[in-house]
Amino acid sequence: MTSENTVRSQNSGAAGRPRADRARQVADVLRQQVLSEAFGAGPLPHEDVLAQEFGASRNTVRQALDLLRGEGLVRRVPGSGTLVAAEKVPHGLNRLEGLAETLHEHGEVVNEVRSFGPVRAPGAVARRFGLPDGADVVYVERLRRLNGLPLSLDLTYLAPDIGALLEPADLAHRDVFRLIEEAAGQPLGAADITLEAVNADAHSAAVLEVPRGAALLMLERLSTLADGRPVDLEYVRFRGDRLAMRGRLLRDLT
Amino acid sequence: MTSENTVRSQNSGAAGRPRADRARQVADVLRQQVLSEAFGAGPLPHEDVLAQEFGASRNTVRQALDLLRGEGLVRRVPGSGTLVAAEKVPHGLNRLEGLAETLHEHGEVVNEVRSFGPVRAPGAVARRFGLPDGADVVYVERLRRLNGLPLSLDLTYLAPDIGALLEPADLAHRDVFRLIEEAAGQPLGAADITLEAVNADAHSAAVLEVPRGAALLMLERLSTLADGRPVDLEYVRFRGDRLAMRGRLLRDLT
Repeated sequence: MTSENTVRSQNSGAAGRPRADRARQVADVLRQQVLSEAFGAGPLPHEDVLAQEFGASRNTVRQALDLLRGEGLVRRVPGSGTLVAAEKVPHGLNRLEGLAETLHEHGEVVNEVRSFGPVRAPGAVARRFGLPDGADVVYVERLRRLNGLPLSLDLTYLAPDIGALLEPADLAHRDVFRLIEEAAGQPLGAADITLEAVNADAHSAAVLEVPRGAALLMLERLSTLADGRPVDLEYVRFRGDRLAMRGRLLRDLT
Repeated sequence: MTSENTVRSQNSGAAGRPRADRARQVADVLRQQVLSEAFGAGPLPHEDVLAQEFGASRNTVRQALDLLRGEGLVRRVPGSGTLVAAEKVPHGLNRLEGLAETLHEHGEVVNEVRSFGPVRAPGAVARRFGLPDGADVVYVERLRRLNGLPLSLDLTYLAPDIGALLEPADLAHRDVFRLIEEAAGQPLGAADITLEAVNADAHSAAVLEVPRGAALLMLERLSTLADGRPVDLEYVRFRGDRLAMRGRLLRDLT
């Protein structure tokens, strides 16, 4: 290996680097251990043990734990040490699945239907569906809870013929994907998705019961039936502290 | 359609709903139009035009634009209207690709190597590589810029035999994926990824040149060679205002 002016070498992650850089390094590995439930329901190892494990000082470990506490991932309990604060559930990223489908092992998803009914589609929405300008679509807004706590706020536009067959009462306890498939008499085929990280505006924060500015995972998803027709356009805000997306990518450069 | 007590019907997205709910609805459709470059380099349509398009009041449209301005996606320029503030680039989510590979149409990726050298692997890292506790790995830290502006901060652990063959000078201008494939004499095969939204801590914010608390898209990625051996474990913080992940999911419930 060569060494350059711009490159600082290090040993055991300790020498010659600002503590904030080393704390981030420790925090990232710990975050993933928390997510993969390496510590179960118990506390994280003691700071001395972590310092040994990471070849870092106790102060660096303490700063790393502060970072994770700032994210709401862990909390400090006097006498008990550092505990995992809230379960962060994994949303599958390899197949098109509804929330209740992907989280069935993690608890019950209940939806509060905040709005349901026909609306004139904005031009940009009509075009995504291949509908003429000014066509009606069905708009559904749901606050979705997992085990009682808000998980996501979903804004959904449905193709008018499909939306007309849905009952709001069914939307409270079932994924819209299943309802669409029953209404259409065919399975969904695929979806184009966009994932972003955004800060919660004041009103969305209040609805999701997080502080203003909290990081949200924002999903836009246009789902099509097996025959290729777009029927479901969704804008979903997931609480960043409660959900992670997990999947597998193949290299396949051919 | 039935109507329930908990369900408010609406017409054209206007009647009977708090303005903040309607503003979010307008903002989400506009956000996606900005991302898909529907407005090109020009300004967004005038508020009156948008109000007509969305069947919303001017005040609602103004509030929607405020939401997008809060995210740093658009800015208001006196005399010119609302302009797209910064290009948000799409990172492919369907194949395992390096940043320079996936963004080659959007500009030049240049990496500042902040750290490079062998470190004793923390236990959790050694286990991901299938290495014995206390084994050395090569640690690389890079601040990655696209067209001069910070895009991501990448913390990377490399299998020791692969890392020993890399030159820091090459890391400044090339994706580590290509360098790994040359060093290993075989292509990468796949990667397990986790995506989260987190708020930037003070130090990461300073490095990425964003306000403290800015939403970041956090990626953890363990990449394996075609023969299945894990060689590259990365923790990547993308600026939420500069990058979105885009991909296609198949339903495929069989």
